[in-house]
Amino acid sequence: MNKLYIIKIGGNVLDNETALNSFLKDFASIKEPKILIHGGGKIATKLGNQLDIESNYVNGRRITDAATLDLVTMVYGGLVNKQLVAALQQLHCNAIGLTGADGNMLKAVKRPVKDIDYGFVGDIKPAGVNTVLLYELLKQNTVPVFAPLTYSEGSMLNTNADTIASVLAVAMSKHFNVRLIFCFEKKGVLQNVNDPGSVITHLPKNLYDNYLAQGVFSDGILPKLENAYSAIEAGVKEVLIGDAADLTHNIGRETKGTLITG
Amino acid sequence: MNKLYIIKIGGNVLDNETALNSFLKDFASIKEPKILIHGGGKIATKLGNQLDIESNYVNGRRITDAATLDLVTMVYGGLVNKQLVAALQQLHCNAIGLTGADGNMLKAVKRPVKDIDYGFVGDIKPAGVNTVLLYELLKQNTVPVFAPLTYSEGSMLNTNADTIASVLAVAMSKHFNVRLIFCFEKKGVLQNVNDPGSVITHLPKNLYDNYLAQGVFSDGILPKLENAYSAIEAGVKEVLIGDAADLTHNIGRETKGTLITG
Repeated sequence: MNKLYIIKIGGNVLDNETALNSFLKDFASIKEPKILIHGGGKIATKLGNQLDIESNYVNGRRITDAATLDLVTMVYGGLVNKQLVAALQQLHCNAIGLTGADGNMLKAVKRPVKDIDYGFVGDIKPAGVNTVLLYELLKQNTVPVFAPLTYSEGSMLNTNADTIASVLAVAMSKHFNVRLIFCFEKKGVLQNVNDPGSVITHLPKNLYDNYLAQGVFSDGILPKLENAYSAIEAGVKEVLIGDAADLTHNIGRETKGTLITG
Repeated sequence: MNKLYIIKIGGNVLDNETALNSFLKDFASIKEPKILIHGGGKIATKLGNQLDIESNYVNGRRITDAATLDLVTMVYGGLVNKQLVAALQQLHCNAIGLTGADGNMLKAVKRPVKDIDYGFVGDIKPAGVNTVLLYELLKQNTVPVFAPLTYSEGSMLNTNADTIASVLAVAMSKHFNVRLIFCFEKKGVLQNVNDPGSVITHLPKNLYDNYLAQGVFSDGILPKLENAYSAIEAGVKEVLIGDAADLTHNIGRETKGTLITG
């Protein structure tokens, strides 16, 4: 099977013009098939404030009301997505911006109301990915760039970008050897949260279980690791957690981040 | 050659929920390959006011400054485009929303500064259309939905939706028998601007030339007619100018609008 890189960048990269331009240059130069998933960044909060759209939280969880949905559809699906696509085109990378509604790419389920009504939030599973069209776009040498938006029943829905990246990786692992790369603000998963140099370079499942029992991982990294292992268990070959600035290393054999395998 | 419908809707339809839903239902039910191009609508002006983005005019012509470009990228490329796509998906029409940057679909040239600097405005020619990818998307039974945005040199650009529709029609006429349909707020081109019933049902070039010499056409309709004939001269088989509410008629033989042929 051919290699496919599925790469997620978060708001911290999007908000730093120098870091973003450097990342996009590295991303564009990847020769293998690749997919980008981006998060939001501060611009949504800034515009939300200007438009008097309040951030609503219930029990500490953010709620997507109708006004917030319009805001993220504009900012993530419009401004951020198209600026990334235009920048990649300039780097001779034939990017095509997508939300989950485009081409029926990510058909979600609106999160059911139990204790909390999250509003317009979509839960997505690998079966909801239109792998046929996605495969075709890759075959045409285009590079899909996903905004963190899914859809259901005629409505756009807000969905976590990490989740979309994982779900895409699982769905595409039928066709490709997928390496799923989460770019964040650290060099990788740290053995000692206070020592930035203590990156765990390779974290196979048995080592993960050991470290987990020893309480090595901080609360901040645990959801990412759980996410990574559920992707691995569902057929993704490799997951890498690392710094956006290290992308060129992290697509190769000698990775600088934390490589997670089964 | 197969038939291809290229259909443009303007702000007047987008701003009227009932008219829009009815139009989308009719559009989704077209069995042949089809492409939709949409304009803006009042939402961009409303949001622009909320965000204190002023509309700048020089000699009566609107200027797209950096803030306005961000606004139209968000609103046209994000909100309006994705709401249309999600609504079409709900009608079992596999819409895929696109700007000119996506898939290198509409590569424009930033309008050169002569007497007026129009700002971030793109001029587009048929050679700037990525017909290969567009053809492939149609082959995959997806329905491209274009926002009125092109791009050049890493930047999004604002481009008139009528122009994009014409340019797409000319570019695709190599592969298809194209009927280009402009939906607007009247039933068609009127012989008497004060009589809504005086629709000219068929306007071949010789009749157009006669009417033109007689001064039949109002200033409002002339640019649309010139646009239509330049499309016909460049290889588009038919252009129709009509009411969005008459779409089901206007895709058939017994059209209700004004059918323009060579």
